[in-house]
Amino acid sequence: MALIVAKFGGTSVADVERIEKAAAKVAREVEAGHQVVVVVSAMSGVTNQLVGYCDAMSKLYDTREYDVVVASGEQVTAGLMAIALQKHNIVARSWMGWQVPIITDDTHGKARIEEIKGEEIMARLNKGEVAVIPGFQGVSKAGRITTLGRGGSDTSAVAVAAALKADRCDIYTDVDGVYTTDPRIVPQAQKMKKVSYEEMLELASLGAKVLQTRSVEIAMKMDISLQVLSSFEDHVGSDYPGTLVTREEEIMEHQLVSGIAFSRDEAKVTLIGVPDVPGVAARLFDPLATAAVNVDMIVQNVSADGKTTDMTFTVSRGDLPRALKVIENMDMDYERLETADNVAKVSVVGIGMRSHSGVANTMFKTLASKNINIQVISTSEIKISVLIGQDYTELAVRSLHQAYGLDGEQVVES
Amino acid sequence: MALIVAKFGGTSVADVERIEKAAAKVAREVEAGHQVVVVVSAMSGVTNQLVGYCDAMSKLYDTREYDVVVASGEQVTAGLMAIALQKHNIVARSWMGWQVPIITDDTHGKARIEEIKGEEIMARLNKGEVAVIPGFQGVSKAGRITTLGRGGSDTSAVAVAAALKADRCDIYTDVDGVYTTDPRIVPQAQKMKKVSYEEMLELASLGAKVLQTRSVEIAMKMDISLQVLSSFEDHVGSDYPGTLVTREEEIMEHQLVSGIAFSRDEAKVTLIGVPDVPGVAARLFDPLATAAVNVDMIVQNVSADGKTTDMTFTVSRGDLPRALKVIENMDMDYERLETADNVAKVSVVGIGMRSHSGVANTMFKTLASKNINIQVISTSEIKISVLIGQDYTELAVRSLHQAYGLDGEQVVES
Repeated sequence: MALIVAKFGGTSVADVERIEKAAAKVAREVEAGHQVVVVVSAMSGVTNQLVGYCDAMSKLYDTREYDVVVASGEQVTAGLMAIALQKHNIVARSWMGWQVPIITDDTHGKARIEEIKGEEIMARLNKGEVAVIPGFQGVSKAGRITTLGRGGSDTSAVAVAAALKADRCDIYTDVDGVYTTDPRIVPQAQKMKKVSYEEMLELASLGAKVLQTRSVEIAMKMDISLQVLSSFEDHVGSDYPGTLVTREEEIMEHQLVSGIAFSRDEAKVTLIGVPDVPGVAARLFDPLATAAVNVDMIVQNVSADGKTTDMTFTVSRGDLPRALKVIENMDMDYERLETADNVAKVSVVGIGMRSHSGVANTMFKTLASKNINIQVISTSEIKISVLIGQDYTELAVRSLHQAYGLDGEQVVES
Repeated sequence: MALIVAKFGGTSVADVERIEKAAAKVAREVEAGHQVVVVVSAMSGVTNQLVGYCDAMSKLYDTREYDVVVASGEQVTAGLMAIALQKHNIVARSWMGWQVPIITDDTHGKARIEEIKGEEIMARLNKGEVAVIPGFQGVSKAGRITTLGRGGSDTSAVAVAAALKADRCDIYTDVDGVYTTDPRIVPQAQKMKKVSYEEMLELASLGAKVLQTRSVEIAMKMDISLQVLSSFEDHVGSDYPGTLVTREEEIMEHQLVSGIAFSRDEAKVTLIGVPDVPGVAARLFDPLATAAVNVDMIVQNVSADGKTTDMTFTVSRGDLPRALKVIENMDMDYERLETADNVAKVSVVGIGMRSHSGVANTMFKTLASKNINIQVISTSEIKISVLIGQDYTELAVRSLHQAYGLDGEQVVES
């Protein structure tokens, strides 16, 4: 008997029928003797609709009220999932974020889970109950509804798994695992059986949108094995048919590069002619951080005369208006501001990089051979990212996938 | 300066644009120096959609989970309304039922408000804040989300007004007030400036569906003046352009009859040849009450020989199958059972009746002059109802409206 957290994403609970199918999977796990906590996303399209309402109401909406609006999507699915489970004669009830409670900080719209009080749910599980928890939402210490940011349902699931010391967290989604890159772009992409937390983190944060970054971080920290699997196939998590995200030690063979990730949700901001004095970076990035703008790549070039500098950084496209507003109100001189959103980030990721050199060089040579100009470079221990013109995304990904020997047999559409 | 509760119904918050228009009305009240609490319904169509999901999931859904699902509709509007108000530089925040809290009993799906703790909201109002409360929802003492039953947002508004000792509760809707009868049937129907709680109660329960009955009951009990007005016209509640539902003493001039109400949602049941012995009525109506069948008009005629009696009563059409099932299983002799659902109830309502005779006579004479047969008569202190053939509904309503001198100028479609 295992304690399993089963998380169903938006397409897996797209409508009443899909919720019923998800409930049937949970029922199979329950019948096999497992304890199950179900975490659900909003029905597909709902969150976009709710976010759309907020955007239409005000470009600079109050994130506290945004949270009230968008958290309702998961609430609906949770209630419906509880009803669906009851049809299998399972005792099930929904637990809103404020009922569990899932306590977060008060960074509305992007809150972080601080504590989950799982005692009552654990007691109910031990009596044979199934708990249904809406993902993505929590409650601040001030008692207001918070949300964890887009894709936060994965994070909810992992955090719940950690709080309840679950044996495994199954992430049911519309893909059957984690691939070496997006199969829509590279038909030869292959499904990984296992991938380490570290690699998954880079892949997730770089735009391979199978799992939310924060969820992998928590899984790694709390040592929770995550499984990514499809809810559209006839199997359940306990059959282990997906990709297991787990500790490096659990993975026998390492490739130099595990996967190629990319993100088109990028915007580049360049401040030209900033006085080159100490503290200038802090003066720029402090207020951006305060405004919860997530800055990703940062490059600073000193000018020829050594008196001014050009600062380039990237943010997600959704954060661009907020970033520009921060810059507008900032106490800092600069000559000119340039922005571009026709850019994309492409990254190669692999734990093998740690012990091998030449990985970056292969990347630069491959891109050069296709005449793809690199605008910004950023590296970490296990990944190399470049910012390129958006039009070149597919070409770059395909070339790199081949260059690093990741091409398998072509995936046949089923 | 007054403390006003402003409630906006579904069509008044149908979409982002309508919510903005409603917010603009609230802003005008705030600018005029008033304190405002806003109560909102779900955007029109949303509640039906959510109820539809529950119905599709299970005909016998758990009402606790139903409440979780359907309460989300008002939650969305509340968040959006807060954002809309902030655009007017008003400090506004939403308060869910569980945040206020609005404590109800645990009759999920049809809960009754037991207590509203308004201290914190009052403190915020005194600092110039506007509170936005989703109607229709509350929280049980066990901490679960409850809903008040369809149309419950009016009840929420009045209960909040009572808890905060508001000066007035404005119900913004898609009609501009309470009319002497349905203008679609009688173009000469007139908008009432004022109507007493008692009259409104009779009008509401008789099918004039402007206000939910329960909300008028609470308003009467707590002495809260209610105003019904249109959100589609360019005025706000403090200009008093709607119909004020208030205490009898506040109304200077009483007409003999204030309005003509009608309902086509009626079914008539007649038991012929029931033994005329003591306790026979109880033996019929006790089990009907137990089965939650709402019996309205009741007539009993003794037969010529004095040994049997005929019992006639009316129920709403939806209750008829349940009523017949109760009768089938009843321990009571009778010769014959007759039912009819091609009937309608027409009522004249007026506080003036209390001190004037002849009101009933005018009704009977008017109907006789049009050859309309009266099947059942029922009276109360301030209303006289008759059951007639449904085909005669419009003719009866029109004739009575004229006979009691209610005809005004013909309403011109705008």
